[in-house]
Amino acid sequence: MAEGKKLSGAGLRGQVAGKTALSTVGVSGSGLTYRGYDVKDLAENCEFEEVAHLILKGALPTQAELDAYKTKLKGLRSLPQALKEVLERIPADAHPMDVIRTGCSMLGNLEQEDTTVMGEFPTQEECIDRMLACFPSIICYWYRFSHDGVRVDENTDDDSIGAHFLHMLRGEKPNELHERVMNVSLILYAEHEFNASTFTARVCASTLSDIHSCITGAIGTLRGPLHGGANEAAMDMIEKFTSADHAEQEMMGMLERKEKIMGFGHAIYSTSDPRNAIIKEWSEKLAADVGDTVLYPVSVRCEEVMWREKKLFCNADFFHASAYHFMGIPTKLFTPIFVMSRLTGWAGHVMEQRADNRIIRPSADYTGEDLRSVTPIAERG
Amino acid sequence: MAEGKKLSGAGLRGQVAGKTALSTVGVSGSGLTYRGYDVKDLAENCEFEEVAHLILKGALPTQAELDAYKTKLKGLRSLPQALKEVLERIPADAHPMDVIRTGCSMLGNLEQEDTTVMGEFPTQEECIDRMLACFPSIICYWYRFSHDGVRVDENTDDDSIGAHFLHMLRGEKPNELHERVMNVSLILYAEHEFNASTFTARVCASTLSDIHSCITGAIGTLRGPLHGGANEAAMDMIEKFTSADHAEQEMMGMLERKEKIMGFGHAIYSTSDPRNAIIKEWSEKLAADVGDTVLYPVSVRCEEVMWREKKLFCNADFFHASAYHFMGIPTKLFTPIFVMSRLTGWAGHVMEQRADNRIIRPSADYTGEDLRSVTPIAERG
Ligand SMILES: CC(C)(COP(=O)(O)OP(=O)(O)OC[C@H]1O[C@@H](n2cnc3c(N)ncnc32)[C@H](O)[C@@H]1OP(=O)(O)O)[C@@H](O)C(=O)NCCC(=O)NCCS
Ligand SMILES: CC(C)(COP(=O)(O)OP(=O)(O)OC[C@H]1O[C@@H](n2cnc3c(N)ncnc32)[C@H](O)[C@@H]1OP(=O)(O)O)[C@@H](O)C(=O)NCCC(=O)NCCS
Repeated sequence: MAEGKKLSGAGLRGQVAGKTALSTVGVSGSGLTYRGYDVKDLAENCEFEEVAHLILKGALPTQAELDAYKTKLKGLRSLPQALKEVLERIPADAHPMDVIRTGCSMLGNLEQEDTTVMGEFPTQEECIDRMLACFPSIICYWYRFSHDGVRVDENTDDDSIGAHFLHMLRGEKPNELHERVMNVSLILYAEHEFNASTFTARVCASTLSDIHSCITGAIGTLRGPLHGGANEAAMDMIEKFTSADHAEQEMMGMLERKEKIMGFGHAIYSTSDPRNAIIKEWSEKLAADVGDTVLYPVSVRCEEVMWREKKLFCNADFFHASAYHFMGIPTKLFTPIFVMSRLTGWAGHVMEQRADNRIIRPSADYTGEDLRSVTPIAERG
Repeated sequence: MAEGKKLSGAGLRGQVAGKTALSTVGVSGSGLTYRGYDVKDLAENCEFEEVAHLILKGALPTQAELDAYKTKLKGLRSLPQALKEVLERIPADAHPMDVIRTGCSMLGNLEQEDTTVMGEFPTQEECIDRMLACFPSIICYWYRFSHDGVRVDENTDDDSIGAHFLHMLRGEKPNELHERVMNVSLILYAEHEFNASTFTARVCASTLSDIHSCITGAIGTLRGPLHGGANEAAMDMIEKFTSADHAEQEMMGMLERKEKIMGFGHAIYSTSDPRNAIIKEWSEKLAADVGDTVLYPVSVRCEEVMWREKKLFCNADFFHASAYHFMGIPTKLFTPIFVMSRLTGWAGHVMEQRADNRIIRPSADYTGEDLRSVTPIAERG
């Protein structure tokens, strides 16, 4: 299992920025736990909604609680008319992460969190459940409208968030395999301690801002190619390779040119990302299902080459690329799926920050000019 | 002048999170400098556009450079039609910070930054100048449309950003005094090292995300009442006081009940905020100009009581409240003005982060459950 790396240097690496009871990353003996449960255990035995309940409400639900929670979320899928009208004004060539960021921000205008009494957030759980239920609608409504000219019906009766998403996207209910993979994927991405997007959400929360601001900021941070954007970048790379040998040859060239290879490496894990083995297994099943003979072997070879040459390992993103691709999901929607899932972790951290808050305000090393006087404008040159 | 406080404890207080050449806060001998210039010197001798040039381009402009920069910004005031249509769908009771956050995010869909080559940002300065020029338009377009049913003309020929804003808001060109106060205010708010919203922008930038994501996230963070929201909260408080004596009486009660008093205290400064004396002087001039005999004396008394009772001093926000009020600016637009200004600091920090980047990813102290196994759902209870 992954051991913590030697942490030092820039980017606050290894510096403690606060407390959390939500997860452990890279602690010896277990790679990743959510509230004490190993992510592998959760991915094997739970649906995503159970894990969302664990993160947001503090415990795995009983069957009755799960049923009630799923029924509640189902009832929150539809979008306000004004939000649909905003999504219809975003062009097809927009970046889908910009769309969901804007959709979340607009929702905050229409269904504002109650922050009337400073430091009290009586409607936070309502707002979070609402986002959990309607983010897939936001993504698919924009995608289908801008790409196919279709105003998709966001009120499906699908049992799970993953199925709801695939249904709206592809126009038909997904099969069992695809629904299962969506559950696993959403579980794997749900929470990851003080990663950059979650940390953004906590910094925002620390000023006692509203939940939509926190989540909007986190979406923007996840968008970056060093963070959530990596699964899309990995896809762009692997789909250029025509065979495993071709992949090896190209990878060697990239390494020689010292290019960064997306989907590899991690800020905390040092020898493996515990999420990789899980999604890799599902990618292999999906490859068999669709009869793939290129993309999966290419991905495996990339993994081998990176380990052999650089001792760099696949992170959660790498085999997600092929898995999503095999399910017919357009590459540009990979990171928005990450949002649908990580929303739970972000929101859990916001609630945790609010419950024991001090404004997050670090210091900086000054490297600039010494004190000087303003020269009158006529004398500058 | 303000000396640095003894810094310790939660909220990363006193922990160095990176380097900057943009400003110093609370360094002994000078309270606040932008690229080496004392903020007092800048507020006395410059227009806001000169300071924006200093922060964004690295140096105070010559007269020719300033003229060119102002002409350029003037040409970037108008809003895309789709953005106007989005603003028209935001209700009058929305929080103006949610509006500007959504407006910025929407702009990112319509005028995306070029991030094609990872880590290269060839259009960043274009995008920043565009935001600097059009944020006042976003705020006023929404405000006038939702409150007065007017589609305001965002293409004014006003010389400065501050005058442009007041012109759109109030429907007529401002007088010289008001234009000067806007310049001073925008200068005072422009930059403040690693405050929470700026730090949000840097965390976002550290994933190599786009500039609109960074600024959208920063807006959401500034919205909190412990940060930018404090000027509005201060106004809400002081306008309830009918006289200086009444203010004193009420303040004493609030202190006894251990309520937080907005517009006082600071994460870094320990004995004064250097921006306070400057805006206080302008608030006094504006009070004389409008013949005020209540709000300014009330504000002065609040300052006296807080210092006498708690050794707490006014931060930048407190006398901004009365100053803005004397200029007829609705309270709910106070924090959006802060955005118009601080955008320069945020953007300066984003460019600095990008130029020497490592992903910002701190660690956390784990306080949660030990490792445990998932109980089958039928057996939970
Ligand atoms: C995740 C990541 C941002 C962590 O950053 P970090 O904590 O700064 O990384 P490290 O300290 O381990 O980097 C050590 C060295 O390995 C190199 N390295 C790390 N990941 C690499 C990759 N994917 N490809 C090539 N080289 C890599 C770094 O460039 C660095 O070399 P240097 O010291 O010569 O600059 C980084 O591994 C990365 O950029 N990976 C690719 C993007 C990605 O997949 N992100 C998703 C993460 S879940
Ligand atoms: C700015 C601020 C968030 C700094 O937070 P901080 O670094 O955690 O503050 P400190 O460490 O100096 O706080 C020390 C003590 O003074 C108290 N205090 C600080 N500001 C106070 C205020 N405005 N009113 C009453 N008490 C205050 C704190 O509650 C704290 O008491 P405690 O230890 O019993 O909790 C804080 O002063 C504040 O909330 N001010 C009001 C909001 C505001 O004006 N924000 C704009 C800042 S530009």
